[in-house]
This record gives sequence, C-alpha cells and structure tokens, in this order.
Amino acid sequence: MGEGVEWALHTCLNLAWVDNDRAVPTATLAAFYDLPPAYLNKQLQALVRAGILSSTSGPRGGFRLARRPAQITVLDVVTAIEGPQEAFECTEILRQAPGGEQGADYRATCVISQTMRQAELTWRRELAGRTLADIKSTVEERFPAVPGQTRNGLGKTRT
Amino acid sequence: MGEGVEWALHTCLNLAWVDNDRAVPTATLAAFYDLPPAYLNKQLQALVRAGILSSTSGPRGGFRLARRPAQITVLDVVTAIEGPQEAFECTEILRQAPGGEQGADYRATCVISQTMRQAELTWRRELAGRTLADIKSTVEERFPAVPGQTRNGLGKTRT
Repeated sequence: MGEGVEWALHTCLNLAWVDNDRAVPTATLAAFYDLPPAYLNKQLQALVRAGILSSTSGPRGGFRLARRPAQITVLDVVTAIEGPQEAFECTEILRQAPGGEQGADYRATCVISQTMRQAELTWRRELAGRTLADIKSTVEERFPAVPGQTRNGLGKTRT
Repeated sequence: MGEGVEWALHTCLNLAWVDNDRAVPTATLAAFYDLPPAYLNKQLQALVRAGILSSTSGPRGGFRLARRPAQITVLDVVTAIEGPQEAFECTEILRQAPGGEQGADYRATCVISQTMRQAELTWRRELAGRTLADIKSTVEERFPAVPGQTRNGLGKTRT
C-alpha cells in the first residue's frame, strides 16, 4: 500500500473539521503536512473521482468533502487510492497443474484462493465498519485541541 | 502481494502430500505448475530461511516440509515470502503537522494508524488460524483425486 493512503485519510479527516462552505486548495492541504503538492493532488483527484471529495476551480477554489463524514468509510478512501483489486491475486496456477482444466474457474474452487480471499474480506469488513465520523469523534475525545489546530493550520497556510 | 505467495502456498501444500523421506528438487516443483525454476527457487529459499521447508543438496537433494502441516499456518508462508511489515506503513505525518512533536510516537497514538493496524490484525489473525493441515484436509474432502495426482505429478516430472 502506498503512502497516498495515509495522506488521503489524514487529509479527508482534516477537511471534516473545516466548514463545508469553504474549499481548501491543494497547496494548503499539502503544506499542512509538508507534502509534495503535485503528488498529493493526484490523490485528491482520485478522491474526487470516487465521490469522496468535490473540487471547485477559481481563486476561491479547492477541495471539500462531498459527503458527510458518517457516509465515508475508511475502506472508501483506501479503495479510491489503491483501487478495488485484492492484495492476493489468484492467477489460477492450478490450470497448469496435472489434471488442470483450461475452462475451470479455479478462483471459485481453489481452497488456497478461498482462504486468502476470506482473510481479505475480514480486513475489508473492518475498514468498511469505520467511518470518518468515528475517527473524528475518537480524535476529538482524546485530543480536544486538534480540531482547532487543524482549522487554524488550514486557514493560516492558505495561499 | 506478489505471485510468489500463491506459488509458495501451493508448493508447500503439494509437499504435504509427498512422503517426508523424499526431497523434491526445484525443477520438479516448478514443472508441476510450469513456473520459472529460478524465481520459484527464490521463494523456496525464503521458506527454508523461515523454517517451513528444509533443503538437502546432492543428486537426491531437494525440498521437503520442515514441520508437520498442522504446525505451518498460512500466515507463516505469507510472512516468509512477503516479510513481516504491514501493508499500511504509517510514516507518522502528524509529526509535520502544526503542533506536531518530533519525539512523539504517533504510531501509538494516531487514530488513523491504529484503525489501519487493527484491520490488518484481523487479517493476520484469520491467516494465522488456518494451517496447511486444514487446507490439506479440505482439499482431500472436496477433491479426493488431488493427493494422488500430486504425488504422481511430482514423481513423473522428477529430473
């Protein structure tokens, strides 16, 4: 998994603390963590394509959440950045084995493939069960200063 | 995850059907699935380093399971091939944020980092709960011809 996932999750969370009538430009979001703006922008565009962020152009343009934090799961963000493919890619090597059939669907019958897929399902289910709103409220409870710091940081460094 | 994991899991399972007094050479194991022997050998060596396979050299040399199938979990094989690092690598970008502290351990406190780690733990736990013996007995139940085919295949193509 690339570092884009970490950047995207933190950036989405930060946007959850910004008033939704305000769009935050890439330069500001990147400066917050001292990230390379061009590369962060690639992740932001992927989040827009996934319907997690919306973007507006122009002098007051930038990014904001396209949905409420309770409607954005951690899995949504991970999938937007990494794509929907599974970490374990079954290439159906059983097809090449003695007795292997060209037309068979070994993804459906191979016990090893099923075991790997089952484990990834538990991972996906875990991430699908956590929303940005959950993370936001946990952070607010444990670190009450963070929402204010974030709003300030994203205001201050605005370009 | 690379295809080496798929190759390693299938190869270990095949070795579980071979009499343990017999070592199977790389060329035979590779020919079974028509895999490139040099690249499969890299995975086999990693499995030896992890104590999952043992290897012997010489004209009757090759690989065999170093432990009983019930003592080898799917996670053991995945970790031997992919290494122990987590898929989500927390780079602690909070350190760069406004109010971030250089000395802080954000892997321990960051709610996003914890969420990602928690999900991976469920994945690991799932794979740690499945042994080669479990997979072997499921295959034997569903596909009774496979053990014989495998023994034949690994005998026939022996070089």
